[in-house]
Amino acid sequence: MTPSVGFIGLGLMGRPMAANLLKAGFKLTVWNRTASRADALVAQGAKRAATPAEAAASDVVITIVSDPPALESVLWGEGGVLGALRSGSVLVDSSTISPALSKRVAQAVAARGAEFLEAPVTGGTWGAEKGELVFMVGGETATLKRVEPVLGAMGKRWLHMGPHGAGQTIKLATNMILALEVEAFAEALALVRAAGVPGERLMEVMQSSMGKSVLLEVKMPVMLKADSTPSFPLRLMHKDLSLALELANQLGVAMPAAAAARENYSAIKGAVGGDADYSVVSELWKKK
Amino acid sequence: MTPSVGFIGLGLMGRPMAANLLKAGFKLTVWNRTASRADALVAQGAKRAATPAEAAASDVVITIVSDPPALESVLWGEGGVLGALRSGSVLVDSSTISPALSKRVAQAVAARGAEFLEAPVTGGTWGAEKGELVFMVGGETATLKRVEPVLGAMGKRWLHMGPHGAGQTIKLATNMILALEVEAFAEALALVRAAGVPGERLMEVMQSSMGKSVLLEVKMPVMLKADSTPSFPLRLMHKDLSLALELANQLGVAMPAAAAARENYSAIKGAVGGDADYSVVSELWKKK
Amino acid sequence: MTPSVGFIGLGLMGRPMAANLLKAGFKLTVWNRTASRADALVAQGAKRAATPAEAAASDVVITIVSDPPALESVLWGEGGVLGALRSGSVLVDSSTISPALSKRVAQAVAARGAEFLEAPVTGGTWGAEKGELVFMVGGETATLKRVEPVLGAMGKRWLHMGPHGAGQTIKLATNMILALEVEAFAEALALVRAAGVPGERLMEVMQSSMGKSVLLEVKMPVMLKADSTPSFPLRLMHKDLSLALELANQLGVAMPAAAAARENYSAIKGAVGGDADYSVVSELWKKK
Amino acid sequence: MTPSVGFIGLGLMGRPMAANLLKAGFKLTVWNRTASRADALVAQGAKRAATPAEAAASDVVITIVSDPPALESVLWGEGGVLGALRSGSVLVDSSTISPALSKRVAQAVAARGAEFLEAPVTGGTWGAEKGELVFMVGGETATLKRVEPVLGAMGKRWLHMGPHGAGQTIKLATNMILALEVEAFAEALALVRAAGVPGERLMEVMQSSMGKSVLLEVKMPVMLKADSTPSFPLRLMHKDLSLALELANQLGVAMPAAAAARENYSAIKGAVGGDADYSVVSELWKKK
Repeated sequence: MTPSVGFIGLGLMGRPMAANLLKAGFKLTVWNRTASRADALVAQGAKRAATPAEAAASDVVITIVSDPPALESVLWGEGGVLGALRSGSVLVDSSTISPALSKRVAQAVAARGAEFLEAPVTGGTWGAEKGELVFMVGGETATLKRVEPVLGAMGKRWLHMGPHGAGQTIKLATNMILALEVEAFAEALALVRAAGVPGERLMEVMQSSMGKSVLLEVKMPVMLKADSTPSFPLRLMHKDLSLALELANQLGVAMPAAAAARENYSAIKGAVGGDADYSVVSELWKKK
Repeated sequence: MTPSVGFIGLGLMGRPMAANLLKAGFKLTVWNRTASRADALVAQGAKRAATPAEAAASDVVITIVSDPPALESVLWGEGGVLGALRSGSVLVDSSTISPALSKRVAQAVAARGAEFLEAPVTGGTWGAEKGELVFMVGGETATLKRVEPVLGAMGKRWLHMGPHGAGQTIKLATNMILALEVEAFAEALALVRAAGVPGERLMEVMQSSMGKSVLLEVKMPVMLKADSTPSFPLRLMHKDLSLALELANQLGVAMPAAAAARENYSAIKGAVGGDADYSVVSELWKKK
Repeated sequence: MTPSVGFIGLGLMGRPMAANLLKAGFKLTVWNRTASRADALVAQGAKRAATPAEAAASDVVITIVSDPPALESVLWGEGGVLGALRSGSVLVDSSTISPALSKRVAQAVAARGAEFLEAPVTGGTWGAEKGELVFMVGGETATLKRVEPVLGAMGKRWLHMGPHGAGQTIKLATNMILALEVEAFAEALALVRAAGVPGERLMEVMQSSMGKSVLLEVKMPVMLKADSTPSFPLRLMHKDLSLALELANQLGVAMPAAAAARENYSAIKGAVGGDADYSVVSELWKKK
Repeated sequence: MTPSVGFIGLGLMGRPMAANLLKAGFKLTVWNRTASRADALVAQGAKRAATPAEAAASDVVITIVSDPPALESVLWGEGGVLGALRSGSVLVDSSTISPALSKRVAQAVAARGAEFLEAPVTGGTWGAEKGELVFMVGGETATLKRVEPVLGAMGKRWLHMGPHGAGQTIKLATNMILALEVEAFAEALALVRAAGVPGERLMEVMQSSMGKSVLLEVKMPVMLKADSTPSFPLRLMHKDLSLALELANQLGVAMPAAAAARENYSAIKGAVGGDADYSVVSELWKKK
């Protein structure tokens, strides 16, 4: 029988993910802090929940919210998920949070007689819309097996990273690499421009060299035009970079280049706010 | 008429480049500090010069040596190129040096009535062997036109970056990006391993994400196996990173992440020497 | 009438501070997580509380614990201070925590009809023993006036920094400077030693120069001898540095040198644990 | 018999040093690139040299110029010192340069049958005027003995650091510490100001704490008032910091916080030029 799905968090990622679940025929109950964001989904057949708890009374519950405090609030807050989770159900969290918090959630879910899977995603809004997300899964293989049909409606692949925490660890490491690569592009652009060479020359060479990459093709044109239409907001990248450094910090691992990049992301966030695409960091050199 | 070519510097890059010139039918005179490195080329028909000056008495003179002091020595040292350069000839330097030194060479060459082109390369030893190098050219378009047949024997493309200095600037910026990307891979690997997650998981996800890149495919497997067979020696990457920072420094441009990475490259060079591939930086975390 | 004082947190700083209150004639009720740490004070006349709440039923309540989670636990945990605070009493927190948490405590205390003062200290265990601490006070002037006799028994000065949050901000900034200065000593020592010059020469010159400072006199001899007897444990300095960076991060302020230093403190903490004096960071270069 | 002294380099430090030599009765021949800077000294009895070589024909020759290229020029350039140095004379260089260059000078001087001492100074223009400089000496003890009367006319102490190179190493390490301390003050100021706390509060607490230092007393008031009247110009501190990092780099020693600070000094130099006092780095945060 098709499991019922509760879906909590209808942001840029959550909305298309939920829409794909509907399309795949799942019985969907949705909740979002700003209720109006659920309107289109409700029009398409989803049931609107008044509280996270209401959405949590499903076979599979998916959460994807913007940061650790938001997750703590929907789980442990008033009318929260944890008070309503059914024994035998599965909670899948696709937010990007710290491995420590993810392990804490796993324990709380187990105490309810339910199962927990962390499943942060990569692929962006584009991947969410096309149903081509990749899930970095942390948790039991048996639990993963149970929710594969649900994941399959939203993404194309799920990679099992290890026990709880492993999925978030890999997600943070992956985003840290992306943040540092964009920082590298930004520093290189600042250098060549200060030397009087157009940034387009750098792009030309990079594309003909070992520096060729998907990220270069996507972000460098945006940086050359100083077009900061958000694809992945600075605010979220800054948060992920901070979570990665916090983890390193707890593990006693030095990440000096990531730390240097984080300071630049902080400065640009202070200067222009967090809504622009994270590639806006390249504008920092124009501000000095 | 086919121009005569003098070739100075028969290292890992220079030897295959010179061999391709021979194959293309150029009359070649070669010089190298360690003379025995010219033996194979001489056996294939190149003339051995006793001094850089002797090789410099050609229509086109190519230099590709390991660092700025080595270039200063072959140009201005005893029996050096600059004392022998013919009026009307072209000097092409494919070493990676500072834009400032490159401009100084341009002036000295002009004073001899000759023309100068800077043409650092990308493509590695593999590209040098296959004749698929890409040249980042700084200098006059007219000069470039004159040497295109020569460049065409060694590479597949030449990109005109601007006046003297522009080619070296782009080369330094490009290598700085590569150095920072490898540093990012190394920091991320250190993080996930400290968290108890195998580095292979990180590779798996990166390949399925926006982090997919040529450099990742080439370097990450090497880092996972801690195989430091040199493809591009740490010594040279460290030098290029230092030249990039020196340039930024003179231009009043901050490059904090590159600076952080350079310190790690210094530390690993201090610990294991400069001959390993630059991806050996990922071994630094095991040394602490 | 002499106010009754509740004292919570009997660590390296708390014990001598509480002892000075006893000596000054205050009626003291003490609590510590590890109860045995209160034995000596009880022998000297303090009353032992079974819970933080019991100690909190006093005119003035002082907390000084090791980090934000410890404070959250004694305030909001079971048998915590906030459930027992009397209307009209004053809570003084001398822990080093984030300004954000301090403001949150202020609100919770106000909701109980009590007053709150943040008063982190400088002066170390030596200052705590001699009653020569300096308090960095954040809160209302009127509240400060009320507790001056209590502060005066433990310290020699109280500097009013501004509203809630200001005291903690200055404390974090001050410790960040100390951490960076010790990092500077460590980097300089590593440099001169690698160059074959004894570190003692550096000390000699610094003492004869503008670099002369109290911190130099205290820490450099310890670093030269690699004697890491804790005066201020690495664990706490690392925490303070992290809190300072977190604050900067939220405010959009870049602190790149502090960020670089924090990574080194993380690495040495990972290598030797957090109990040594924070000057142990200079041992990091020997570990590579 | 009183030795004749040649003095080369009449900048902010050189002029008062030369004046003190005159006052002490030495027969002085002076040279400066901008000849007019010698006018006052000539009026006081010094002989004006037309070239460095002319000043070098003395028993003791002192050089104090702004950077390595300037020293190379007065030593090896046309009419330079090295062509004129007498056998048995002593060359004392008080410039701040790299240990490597200093060793190269030592060899060139020995080849002329003369002796060389490196003797960079600390004490600033104030110390130069009062004759209270401290010399960090590298070279032979016997050579030092020979020039003690000359040093004694300009300074109060000479500390023997070791062989050639050791004096410069300690000088670079010392200035690197000062540069990092000022960077620490600047980052802390930026933090407290962004949090809405006046910088004066930070100064107040630092003066009452273990952070009390000569540098704090001198630089913090200047930073609070944003008064950048040069005491030690940014240009020179930036150069010294770069030399320290270059040395570390060659020795394979990581100095991540110094590297981070150097990037900020570069950025502020790019923004306001090099003539302001190096404490102007604290203005960087206002520029973003």
